[in-house]
Amino acid sequence: MKIGILGTGMVGNAIGAKLIQLGHQVKMGSRTAGNEKAVEWVEQNGSTASQGTFRDAASFAEIIFNCTAGAVSLEALEMAGAENLSGKILVDIANPLVRGTFPSLVPSLSNTTSLGEEIQKRYPETKVVKTLNTMMCNVMVDPSLVPGEHDIFICGNDNEPKLKVREILNWFGWKAPIDLGDLSNARYTEMLSAFWMPLFNLYGTPNFNFKVSVGKG
Amino acid sequence: MKIGILGTGMVGNAIGAKLIQLGHQVKMGSRTAGNEKAVEWVEQNGSTASQGTFRDAASFAEIIFNCTAGAVSLEALEMAGAENLSGKILVDIANPLVRGTFPSLVPSLSNTTSLGEEIQKRYPETKVVKTLNTMMCNVMVDPSLVPGEHDIFICGNDNEPKLKVREILNWFGWKAPIDLGDLSNARYTEMLSAFWMPLFNLYGTPNFNFKVSVGKG
Repeated sequence: MKIGILGTGMVGNAIGAKLIQLGHQVKMGSRTAGNEKAVEWVEQNGSTASQGTFRDAASFAEIIFNCTAGAVSLEALEMAGAENLSGKILVDIANPLVRGTFPSLVPSLSNTTSLGEEIQKRYPETKVVKTLNTMMCNVMVDPSLVPGEHDIFICGNDNEPKLKVREILNWFGWKAPIDLGDLSNARYTEMLSAFWMPLFNLYGTPNFNFKVSVGKG
Repeated sequence: MKIGILGTGMVGNAIGAKLIQLGHQVKMGSRTAGNEKAVEWVEQNGSTASQGTFRDAASFAEIIFNCTAGAVSLEALEMAGAENLSGKILVDIANPLVRGTFPSLVPSLSNTTSLGEEIQKRYPETKVVKTLNTMMCNVMVDPSLVPGEHDIFICGNDNEPKLKVREILNWFGWKAPIDLGDLSNARYTEMLSAFWMPLFNLYGTPNFNFKVSVGKG
């Protein structure tokens, strides 16, 4: 499959490398073609890896992963161009975090809305699926880094795109993603991402994740 | 011990009944003495249970549990009176939720602050400890309702009050509460409380909870 990765940070690197290993063609996009980090990623990932602008990556792709920083994702998607996003699945991994010692969420992108929902509103022809945004990128593509059972959440407005993304999650090693329902549930997984930093500070390792334990009654 | 419960809802009922079972004297407080729900709770819980105003309950207590609705907790505490809160541990179980199909948090009490922090700011002589606010009240006082391992979080600015509250959590059945550190971490557990409703809708039971699974590396 042809996959576009928006963003050249740790998340884009990890997701892109995993998809290359799985046999896909991956183009990493950034603000400008020839971005130093994107070029380095291509060099490390062989002939099925390529790079270009956000527009290049989105135009190339059948499925797009939003791995940009959530606070600037809407800007990045605007550079990608609505015509290059239309009709495609956009896997939104970004969190609208204001970075700091104590992470908080961008008020206009949280609480009574979410980044996922705002993207969907702006690009109604794109199939936004929110997932993978509640753990560190190494865990995203290798859940075995965390021992025992632990969970990944998925939400989106349509079932067919979610089924496709569940297939990709299965390739990554996630056996039973928790389908929260429509995209409004992105609010809660984006909130959960803010919880990541205090737990990282506490445990001193990024290799942790949440599990939901459910009883009867 | 003499314990004050602020609030006559499900949480206050469950915490109060458990503390009575454990041998404590518990006074439930509400806006007015003789509140119908408080009177009923007293009738169900025997001679060591009593009721009165918020002020009566706080004045009576060595330790106070804030079980009011988070959006009105500051108002309830004002009715309790700073002089009745001073020098005491306040276990803050409340979440500043705006109720609705999709729960959201009161903006002035969330994201870059929290209800726990705002209470602490207003009552600097009170020892605020945030805990128990991330699960259903039946699970709060009986963690065995959820199978397997699952977690409870605690945070607060001073260690001694946290140690005392950990002891109470142990009585409730919680073996190893996760100490997140100071009270600023209440932001994240209050956010997690918003995640409760979509999961309740999904699982159809309130008997669930989060676990943090931690690996190496």
